Amino acid sequence: MVDGGARELRELTNDDALRLLGTVRFGRVVFTRHALPTIRPVNHVVDGEHVIIYANPSVVPMHSDRQVVSYEADTIDHHTQLGWCVILTGTAEAVLESDEIARYERQIDPWLPGVLHRIVRIRPDIVTGIELC
Amino acid sequence: MVDGGARELRELTNDDALRLLGTVRFGRVVFTRHALPTIRPVNHVVDGEHVIIYANPSVVPMHSDRQVVSYEADTIDHHTQLGWCVILTGTAEAVLESDEIARYERQIDPWLPGVLHRIVRIRPDIVTGIELC
Repeated sequence: MVDGGARELRELTNDDALRLLGTVRFGRVVFTRHALPTIRPVNHVVDGEHVIIYANPSVVPMHSDRQVVSYEADTIDHHTQLGWCVILTGTAEAVLESDEIARYERQIDPWLPGVLHRIVRIRPDIVTGIELC
Repeated sequence: MVDGGARELRELTNDDALRLLGTVRFGRVVFTRHALPTIRPVNHVVDGEHVIIYANPSVVPMHSDRQVVSYEADTIDHHTQLGWCVILTGTAEAVLESDEIARYERQIDPWLPGVLHRIVRIRPDIVTGIELC
């Protein structure tokens, strides 16, 4: 057994975790597709307690209501080994209201690749965050 | 619909993807836990065509044979928006042979947090990699 905790570790409050998430422009959405665990890097914005992502339709298929997803973002530096990591789990649903779509399209400006048909709102149920300092 | 492809995008060969994965020390393992999609940052080494991670036992429970997982690592810079991203999907199994455990313990030197009971070998079935340049 190895306790991989050489760095000082600080647990973040939910508020701090969402605030840090809002300081970066992309993360990784994790979902189940054809019964397989799947991950895709996507751009996001934080809107209050919700995380809004531009995603491929497979994250929330057109005819499904909601899907449970996880979302992760971090700034852990490969060299200094310092940074923070935020993971949340919650329900994802397609944003369908045209005024909200227009508002989020102005905010997100996605630059990660992929033909992105869908703006998805994630409502976190569980938020965990750590800081390596 | 937005085509989020402002950057030049290059698809990586499997060999290039695994080679790049071997240049960094951590990534994110994605698995199903209690029927929920789950993600954890972990340290890794690349051993030939396999990816070896130090992980929490939940990735591969003691009494399960194998588990399908995805693994992701990237160096996408939050500011320059440049870098690469590698995603693989395959089967994960606990490494149980004591000589292999000793060999990997010398190689990995994990620094990400968590009480890490398990060295896990991922045998990739699907490898995808992109470079944003």
